[in-house]
Amino acid sequence: MSEVRELAFKAGELDAADELGELRGKFVLDEVVYLDGNSLGALPVAVPGHVDDVVRRQWGSLRIRSWEESGWWTAPERIGDRIAPLVGAAAGQIVVGDSTSVNVFKALVAAVRMAGAGAGAGAGAGAGAGVGAGRDEILVDATTFPTDGYIAGSAARMTGCSLRPVTPAEVPGALSDRTAAVLLNHVDYRTGRLHDLPGLTAAVHEAGAYAVWDLCHSAGALPVGLDEHGVDLAVGCTYKYLNGGPGSPAYLYVRRDLQPRFDSPLPGWNSHAEPFGMRPEYTPAPGALRGRVGTPDILSMLALEAALEVWDGVTIESVRAKSLALTDFFLECVAAYVPEGRVESLTPGAHAERGSQVALRCPRAGDVMKRLIENGVVGDFRHPDVLRFGFTPLYVGFGDVERAGRVLGEVLT
Amino acid sequence: MSEVRELAFKAGELDAADELGELRGKFVLDEVVYLDGNSLGALPVAVPGHVDDVVRRQWGSLRIRSWEESGWWTAPERIGDRIAPLVGAAAGQIVVGDSTSVNVFKALVAAVRMAGAGAGAGAGAGAGAGVGAGRDEILVDATTFPTDGYIAGSAARMTGCSLRPVTPAEVPGALSDRTAAVLLNHVDYRTGRLHDLPGLTAAVHEAGAYAVWDLCHSAGALPVGLDEHGVDLAVGCTYKYLNGGPGSPAYLYVRRDLQPRFDSPLPGWNSHAEPFGMRPEYTPAPGALRGRVGTPDILSMLALEAALEVWDGVTIESVRAKSLALTDFFLECVAAYVPEGRVESLTPGAHAERGSQVALRCPRAGDVMKRLIENGVVGDFRHPDVLRFGFTPLYVGFGDVERAGRVLGEVLT
Repeated sequence: MSEVRELAFKAGELDAADELGELRGKFVLDEVVYLDGNSLGALPVAVPGHVDDVVRRQWGSLRIRSWEESGWWTAPERIGDRIAPLVGAAAGQIVVGDSTSVNVFKALVAAVRMAGAGAGAGAGAGAGAGVGAGRDEILVDATTFPTDGYIAGSAARMTGCSLRPVTPAEVPGALSDRTAAVLLNHVDYRTGRLHDLPGLTAAVHEAGAYAVWDLCHSAGALPVGLDEHGVDLAVGCTYKYLNGGPGSPAYLYVRRDLQPRFDSPLPGWNSHAEPFGMRPEYTPAPGALRGRVGTPDILSMLALEAALEVWDGVTIESVRAKSLALTDFFLECVAAYVPEGRVESLTPGAHAERGSQVALRCPRAGDVMKRLIENGVVGDFRHPDVLRFGFTPLYVGFGDVERAGRVLGEVLT
Repeated sequence: MSEVRELAFKAGELDAADELGELRGKFVLDEVVYLDGNSLGALPVAVPGHVDDVVRRQWGSLRIRSWEESGWWTAPERIGDRIAPLVGAAAGQIVVGDSTSVNVFKALVAAVRMAGAGAGAGAGAGAGAGVGAGRDEILVDATTFPTDGYIAGSAARMTGCSLRPVTPAEVPGALSDRTAAVLLNHVDYRTGRLHDLPGLTAAVHEAGAYAVWDLCHSAGALPVGLDEHGVDLAVGCTYKYLNGGPGSPAYLYVRRDLQPRFDSPLPGWNSHAEPFGMRPEYTPAPGALRGRVGTPDILSMLALEAALEVWDGVTIESVRAKSLALTDFFLECVAAYVPEGRVESLTPGAHAERGSQVALRCPRAGDVMKRLIENGVVGDFRHPDVLRFGFTPLYVGFGDVERAGRVLGEVLT
């Protein structure tokens, strides 16, 4: 019990000193300790009123006029520019729209084409050009969230490349002059391991290939530095640490100097240089909006835009500092409260290798998570034996962390 | 002036006899005559409250639990089944999600693969198989909304086919044993011409090819009869005559017996047989949900679901009957009110060839539409010289039609 008092006291001190603590008031929260923001972020207070305005006034009253008057048409690039500073990108390089899976397809096919492997008029010619250029292989993170691997398989099949799954650690050794593109996750969805984006990107470039990064589990939780590290293409979702809401649209980053060579496999009319010209020939727009496809889903997109307001005046560096403090403190609480040997952390102890979640391997993890949820602590279960806890620094406090660790200890005792 | 009295009187009679007239109360409308529902349908009264519940309760309170408890996960197929009867499809063949452009890509690539042209492991092999099978050509409606042509170009390029644009009338003559797939529009977005879906589908089948229909401008306005006419694959948007809201998700129909052979170019995790198994190998789900890709955009999707409630107890046949009466009456009013020779209808007079819009060619159409809008009649302008008026039978009345014709006459006099 003195241990409980000690950690509860420490949590109170940490919360009192937390410079991001006030942001919690910008979210709709209740008595539940919500550690599943790495799956679906909590609802920002600003969203419901904004969505209601979009539905009732913009759609209901202005109707078709809103495409111009309410800025619907330009939302994909405008909201892309709002996300840009959070991932270290200058404006004009990100568009929002479609799902992460669809954006992985766009990015990877475009990367292969940049590498010369998929060029040419038809697939037959493409495959030929691939062999001719000597680059006919896509490397994909074998530990990735599976959709990336499935989509990479399709991108490979459709560009005449072969797909080679490797772990991120194996990437440097697997790169060769056959490598066209490499698809990597910044943070592993299961273990929470943070991969070395600068080092791996540099290695990919040294091999003459293109690096595509999936930022789903890092954007909004830690600095990404897309521009600084010369990343070629990147994708990410917006419903985790960016709190855009269920299935809110994903985004695509195309580095500015690569944009003229971005050759989309999904050249929908929204990416046309003159979308209302209704021309039979396709001429891609300049810039990031070359990554657009069809009509954007406005309700989801503008909910996201309102959700991003919570970032006003918040730096990603301060979020990262709190994120590490939260996961450090959670590991400390787990060590103190959970009987020895009942759980094993899959998440690296080193800060440089840790995202914003803690994954604990635990026998009968599914049942354990059920009991945690019954006791007011929401994380999630990943097959077959992983308890996943995500820490969103914008609204999770140290008191939450202490309670989560304590309840986990009770459930496992 | 007696002509005005006469047509106004007739409008009153038609409105009084209109058995769908009460449905108007299910939409948010004002004093504007809204004839742009073929671009963005009006807001159904049921939507704002439902969206508010989705945002505040389902997302805000239940959070991650809503994927199961609020039926988020199964929304794409559930809402697909709600659309199915409107396009003459039995349940289990439609999934909702992504944009029309993305669905055109899925459908066309899958059709080419069914034809044997794109089969094989890699694009090189695919092109080879295409030549081997003798089917290496995609026919596309040259008069189509351009995105279909752009996406068809990409599908052709990525499957080793060539793309051949033809008018729908030229399709029967262009079909050959080289044809893999044909992409057609049911109703032309510009002229409002209704194409012969049963006849063209039969001709495509006779040539041993696959028919993909774009229903954007017909679904919700007239009977489509997908099952009855043996259509292979179809796509459509939901924000026109289905009133789903700006950028609401599109849908994909895959005929039941073709589903086991539907080989998606976008095999995202949502289409996996066991999506939460997180398996590295892709195994497609059975049935229509094989057409899913990534996480569905729930806000837009559930707004659409609420919007579809207005169809309860409404038959598409009654909607079609009113649609034809509305466009007939509009053409009558235009003939009466607009000075001879000022406009020319691009929309066929024959009912069998008319969708639910009237397109009038008119000099300086852009300016004319501006003045119409200033005078409370909203249609739209299509480059270079077309005034487009869409008639949504669920909420447009004959009085609206008379007023629109009268104002057009005033503007052009």
